[in-house]
Formats: sequence, structure tokens, C-alpha cells
Amino acid sequence: MSNYVYGRNSFFEALKKGRIIKAYVLNDKEIKNRNIPYQICDRKMLDRLCNSGNHQGFVGEVKEYKLSNVDEMIRDRNGLIIVLDGLEDVHNLGAIIRTAECAGADGVIYKSHNSVKVNDTVAKVASGALEYVKVAEVNNLVNTLKELKKKNYWIVGSDGSADKMYDELDYDMNTVLVIGSEGKGMSRLVKEECDFIVKLPMYGHITSLNASVAAGILIYNVISSRNRK
Amino acid sequence: MSNYVYGRNSFFEALKKGRIIKAYVLNDKEIKNRNIPYQICDRKMLDRLCNSGNHQGFVGEVKEYKLSNVDEMIRDRNGLIIVLDGLEDVHNLGAIIRTAECAGADGVIYKSHNSVKVNDTVAKVASGALEYVKVAEVNNLVNTLKELKKKNYWIVGSDGSADKMYDELDYDMNTVLVIGSEGKGMSRLVKEECDFIVKLPMYGHITSLNASVAAGILIYNVISSRNRK
Repeated sequence: MSNYVYGRNSFFEALKKGRIIKAYVLNDKEIKNRNIPYQICDRKMLDRLCNSGNHQGFVGEVKEYKLSNVDEMIRDRNGLIIVLDGLEDVHNLGAIIRTAECAGADGVIYKSHNSVKVNDTVAKVASGALEYVKVAEVNNLVNTLKELKKKNYWIVGSDGSADKMYDELDYDMNTVLVIGSEGKGMSRLVKEECDFIVKLPMYGHITSLNASVAAGILIYNVISSRNRK
Repeated sequence: MSNYVYGRNSFFEALKKGRIIKAYVLNDKEIKNRNIPYQICDRKMLDRLCNSGNHQGFVGEVKEYKLSNVDEMIRDRNGLIIVLDGLEDVHNLGAIIRTAECAGADGVIYKSHNSVKVNDTVAKVASGALEYVKVAEVNNLVNTLKELKKKNYWIVGSDGSADKMYDELDYDMNTVLVIGSEGKGMSRLVKEECDFIVKLPMYGHITSLNASVAAGILIYNVISSRNRK
């Protein structure tokens, strides 16, 4: 089965990385000198190729996403890995991958069962970030967290029941941030692996933020707290 | 024309606030003692009522959203107002309203032309927050910013070209945070009204975050910086 990227940003990021096998476009103005096979199509065909996604005139057939693995992330050692425990929404996955890339995180890990996976929509929402940030699927998150601890990482989960605020922790350590699922948060077994559990303050009536917004706040707080040192 | 809220959270928040005129549900288990007129429907009818939105079995016909105004926000004086300059995506608007409510902001202001408006999808994404946070539509953002300055607010815009990082500013002042549009950022005239322009650090190849994620980081940083005092 073919994979497609669509939307201007995702298309051109994939092109830069040499991942586009064939381009499908409304016109060839921006791609005719790019040395890739292309086909000029009408809007209806582009709509069909990406299931009516917002393609902005650019659809590319790409090589399959080559996922990464945890060892490669550890080698990078910016000391920040994002772990997703059961996220359910592809838009959240895409937005978190984008945020991880912008923040210079070493990678994003999610479990291969019962959660969303990298697909065309995720690539679109990630706005090209999928070409750069390492993403790994693992079978067992708890084992992965145990391995990361052995490699000198500290596990920080976020949960509304925590005593500590997210901005009270010193993140000057190799940090794994665990983001729970939209409805249910972290699973019990994952929570038990956390060295620290922190929460975001909630001052209103609504008791939780959108998962990708919460992840963004937590991720950027790690960077900000390190820069304040 | 009728307005509908849909999805469990939005439905029950609207119900709590007495805004539901009539409920449309798959079964009446959770609403039969709530003292509102309701109709049991099949999934197809619920799909139709909310244009195939993710209703989770709950659709409510509601009174029209009563927007607020800037004066009411000023009276609240938590010293944090969010201004949206030309946001284009309803999901971002909904997520920002949700974040503003969670952070205890006094309100969200957007201009009535050329941008997204509060509608059923926004209400759903805001996950009930629209029932609590003040939202105002204004004709002229520049005039609104001028008025807010007279009332002792400082205007903080965010833009990639800024010299100052977002976490270097002291937010111990009445703050108006201006969030630009997804593609183009702030407009020139709005930028000229800013007392401070700050940026989020970008460490990767992708040059911008999702607008609602960026807004979340900026909003929570204001709160966090005040709590650190």
C-alpha cells in the first residue's frame, strides 16, 4: 500500500529529504525542476488520493515511514524523550511530534497497540516534523521505561492527582516526559514507573487541557527551566 | 437557526449551565431525571444534527452563545486577556478557549472579520470551556488594544523575529497576549501596538508550532512566571 503526504509544508519537507517517489500536483510551477516524476491532476483526483484532506495542491507518494528505535534516541542525548501512553487522536500525535521537533527533543515513543500510529494525517498535522524527529513504536511501554531508567533517564509523568506542580521540578537531568491518553491519563503500570509525577495547575471549571497543548506546555517548560539555570 | 452542542463534555457543561433547550440522545439513562425535554434518536439522526461530528451519543439544542465584551473582562482582573489576530482554524480557536479557561484568563478576544468564530465545532473542541470563559468579538483589534492600554494593560505579541525570549519577560503586570494567525502571524498594525514582542525558541528544522500549542505555552508561562515570584 502506498503512503501519501499532502499539504504544502509536509510535501516540501518530504521532498527535501528525498522521500517523494512521485508527486501529484495541480500545476508543475514549483516542482518541474526538482527532478522527480510528477503528474498534473485535477482537484478531484488529489482529494481522492488523500481522502479529502487539505492538500493545498500538493500530494506526494512517499517511501514508507521508517520508524526509529529507542537506542538511536539515547545516542542523541539532548536529554529529552517524549513517551505517549495511549493517545487516541491522530491530530494530537501530529501536533506533539511537531512540538517535539521544535523543542529539539530526541524522540517520541508510543506503544504499538491500542493507540494512534504515524499515518498520512499525522504527517500532515506534524507539518514536516516527521522528516526530522525520531519516532519509535514499542510493544511494551513499561519495559521501555525500565530500560531508559537503566540508561540514566528520569521518568516524569503528568497527572491531575500529583502534589507537585510541573514547574517546581528541576529538569536538569535526562528527562522522559510521559503524556497520558486524552480521556484516561496514564495507565496504572506506567504511572508506577514514574520517578516524579507533576501536574498542570487548573484554575477554571474545566479539569484538563487538550493533550497536545498540555504536552507543549510540559515540553517547553523543560527547556525553559534548563535555560533559566 | 438552531445551535447544537455535541460530545459528552460539551453537552453536560451546557446542561449544568441551563443552556440546553432540548436533548437528542441514544438512550435516556443519564438524562431522564434532568428535567429537560429530550428525544431518543438513532445514531444516524445524531450524526445529521451535528454534521457527523463526534457526538458520543449526546447532542443538545442550545440557546445562542451569548458573547461577552471587553469591559466585562477588564472587571474580572486576573490580569490576563488573550487576543487572537486572524486565527483561521476552528480547532485552534476551541483549544485556545479551553486553555484560557483552565489558566483562569479573563477572556478571549477575536476580530469579527476574516477569522474563525464561535460555532458548534469550537464549542465541542473547547470541551465545555465556552460555558465559562468570556469570549468577545470586536470590529477593530487595534482600537481594542489601544483601549486596553489606557486601562493599564501591557500588550505582549509573539513573533519569530523578536529578540526577547517569551520566558525572559516579567509578566507581573496586566497582560494582553496576542496570538497571530497560523500562517502569517500578527498583522503589521497589531504588531505596532505591542509593548513587547517575544518569541518561542525553535531548536529544530520546523519553524513554528501549532497555534493552539504555542498559545498554551505562552499562557501557562505567564501563570508560571507569576507563581515563581
